[in-house]
Amino acid sequence: MDERLDPWGSVEVADYERLMKKFGIESAVKYQKKFNDLIYFRRGIIFGHRDFGRIADAIENRKRFAMMTGMMPSGTFHLGHKMVADEIIWFQKKKADIFICAADIESYLMRDMPLDKARKIAIEEYLTNYVALGLKPENVTFWFQSDYKKEYYRLCDIAAKEVTFNELKGIYGELTNGKIISALKQVGDILHPQLKEFGGPRPVVVPVGTDQDPHLRLSRDISSRLQGFNMIPPSATYHKLMSGLQGGKMSSSKPDSYISLSGNPKTESKKVLSAKTGGRATLEEQKKLGGIPEQCVVYEMCFYHLVEDDKELEEMRSDCKSGKLLCGECKKKCSEKLEKFLAEHQKKRVEAGKIVEKILKQK
Amino acid sequence: MDERLDPWGSVEVADYERLMKKFGIESAVKYQKKFNDLIYFRRGIIFGHRDFGRIADAIENRKRFAMMTGMMPSGTFHLGHKMVADEIIWFQKKKADIFICAADIESYLMRDMPLDKARKIAIEEYLTNYVALGLKPENVTFWFQSDYKKEYYRLCDIAAKEVTFNELKGIYGELTNGKIISALKQVGDILHPQLKEFGGPRPVVVPVGTDQDPHLRLSRDISSRLQGFNMIPPSATYHKLMSGLQGGKMSSSKPDSYISLSGNPKTESKKVLSAKTGGRATLEEQKKLGGIPEQCVVYEMCFYHLVEDDKELEEMRSDCKSGKLLCGECKKKCSEKLEKFLAEHQKKRVEAGKIVEKILKQK
Repeated sequence: MDERLDPWGSVEVADYERLMKKFGIESAVKYQKKFNDLIYFRRGIIFGHRDFGRIADAIENRKRFAMMTGMMPSGTFHLGHKMVADEIIWFQKKKADIFICAADIESYLMRDMPLDKARKIAIEEYLTNYVALGLKPENVTFWFQSDYKKEYYRLCDIAAKEVTFNELKGIYGELTNGKIISALKQVGDILHPQLKEFGGPRPVVVPVGTDQDPHLRLSRDISSRLQGFNMIPPSATYHKLMSGLQGGKMSSSKPDSYISLSGNPKTESKKVLSAKTGGRATLEEQKKLGGIPEQCVVYEMCFYHLVEDDKELEEMRSDCKSGKLLCGECKKKCSEKLEKFLAEHQKKRVEAGKIVEKILKQK
Repeated sequence: MDERLDPWGSVEVADYERLMKKFGIESAVKYQKKFNDLIYFRRGIIFGHRDFGRIADAIENRKRFAMMTGMMPSGTFHLGHKMVADEIIWFQKKKADIFICAADIESYLMRDMPLDKARKIAIEEYLTNYVALGLKPENVTFWFQSDYKKEYYRLCDIAAKEVTFNELKGIYGELTNGKIISALKQVGDILHPQLKEFGGPRPVVVPVGTDQDPHLRLSRDISSRLQGFNMIPPSATYHKLMSGLQGGKMSSSKPDSYISLSGNPKTESKKVLSAKTGGRATLEEQKKLGGIPEQCVVYEMCFYHLVEDDKELEEMRSDCKSGKLLCGECKKKCSEKLEKFLAEHQKKRVEAGKIVEKILKQK
């Protein structure tokens, strides 16, 4: 079957198991306990990895390593993006050098986003929310693809020699100039932390959704082909993606699908009340059969973000399944939790300005 | 006929007239008198142009303009390269801002040339000889594609959006990553002098051989498509290429074909004695029929480089055609002229170091 992961297509992955087999992603189950201080590990939301052993070793034995992530600045920062932010911050606490890319050339070439607009979104939406969620300025390198250092551009350019046209076609499907340039920029984004000008060869982890795996595979291949750099193939973790409020994808282009972390807490948290749940057709039926948390976006939101405590989450789940906790009450609770979180987050956003400035300056 | 000019292929253009018609290059005849202080104009070696009117106007009316040229640093600097050097220096005297590119990314991607080796060649061979031939450091920007400013890289990247994959294919034939990246770098090379960071929109002339015309056409197209930059489509002049000493192409990879401007004056000038001439099979025949200067590389060398004075050149030509001047004597004369030129040039090369340093620093 000619199945490809497409970083610029739509993402809905029904069968993670099959994907892992097909693309050679390893199970992350063995890290669930070891790194249970991150709920995404603990709850299996990070389901797979490549070469994460190197990163685990670096964390446990206090060796140098880096974390790299990129964002395509395309709209409001929502709950779906919070996961990467939490992962960045977790890796920072584990002493990683943090590299964050605003992929403005990619959003220009692939999404028609003007560079100045992308810059504004990257700073005001993404970076500000990262800081409000807990990102510290120490050891953070934040860059725009359109506004960085020559060593980075040099790497993107010479990387072109380490992959054939047909390989790129095999990875990304029919090629366009935009796809080729974007792919090579991603390779530079992922690999440049190992240039001597940026800290030299060391393990680098890139937390991604599966849709970004093509960039990872390409970067890993090129890292081992590049002569004279002694690069270590970058590691990756793969997380599941949270659904949108009405099911489907949580997307910046559909306000009904997301909870914005920059929006008004009241307005945003109200959206929970009309979210898709795992409730039954009638109240009677639900009392009798119980709800289906596995199909409930509200439960998913608690599972990913709103309920840190495992016992509380388990209680919620079993109360739903037993028919004790009905959707109305549950949505109200969840909405209140969300409003509280967003209200506090708003305060932190206001305070984030100075740190954001600092990070932008130290580029 | 599917005929293409190929910047990375071999160049032998028999029929300049046909080429001009086919690719829409205009005749440069009308500039032969106006700019007769440059022998390449005066003698019709610069045979064609695109939009040179803008440049003529800028020169005559003392308006701002720039000259841009690139080199692929691939080996010794020879007489064939001297023509571009002389053109650079002529434009500098006409008050152009001078932009000189060392296309090291291109030579890496297309010719397997390591970046450090390309840098050495670009400086020691090309730039040093430019300075020895008369390039002044004032208003010169000299850059390596691998080592320049972010605004340049940004332009190369966004240019990718202004041309389709199929257009590139139409211009360059079957595509490779290397071709695409090299072509976009050339676009950045040619157009970036018009960015506000580099002096803003103004006429820019690029003196080239016809093999480089694809880059010109692409750059001109993209200059008019780019929104918000107010770029003026770059102008170009097209010169004929001097033959190699044995006929065919003068090529850095064939020492018998070239006269090196960095080599030993005695050794290099001796090569003239075994060059291909327009002489007849026997001495008797030549005395009777005369030689054929149009087929003589030695005459060509004088025509392009060694005989500045038109009368002297005409005398040489008619004495050859009448059978008065025989090849042996002519080659000896030419060889002596060359040795004298090279010996003086060597002295200037030694003195060039400081100015080369200055140019490299002011990048």
